[in-house]
Amino acid sequence: MAQYMDIHHNMRGITADQLEQAHAADLAIQQEEGVHFQQAWADPESGTVYCLSEAPSAEAVQRIHERTGHQADEIHPVPFSVR
Amino acid sequence: MAQYMDIHHNMRGITADQLEQAHAADLAIQQEEGVHFQQAWADPESGTVYCLSEAPSAEAVQRIHERTGHQADEIHPVPFSVR
Repeated sequence: MAQYMDIHHNMRGITADQLEQAHAADLAIQQEEGVHFQQAWADPESGTVYCLSEAPSAEAVQRIHERTGHQADEIHPVPFSVR
Repeated sequence: MAQYMDIHHNMRGITADQLEQAHAADLAIQQEEGVHFQQAWADPESGTVYCLSEAPSAEAVQRIHERTGHQADEIHPVPFSVR
């Protein structure tokens, strides 16, 4: 399992409710691809959403996002992280 | 206080040690601007680093990053987040 940061553009005006609903839709089926969406953040002004996940591959992350109707524009492995 | 996601490009080849050192340098002076860097993630392949912070402004985040020698290329407020 690796950690991924995926990015959605063109989400201008997204609301907190819409972010929660999109995230809930992903959580509902993530197990089918062995993905665990951990956190997500939204900037409604620039229209950017960032999702942090643990997954077997970037393709697995994308399959979940596609099935829930919000394909990611970028998916980057982030092998290093700090707190 | 608001939450921000800032992004550094052109960090290709960054190592786990370099990420830790850069983050530690930010943490050492963050209080001077009322910033709290929470997490950071690095993709050495695309050369992208993502930093999540709580701060009084994007400018405060940038001032810390500039003083520690790694100016951010983008700083986005992320008013909404989910887990």
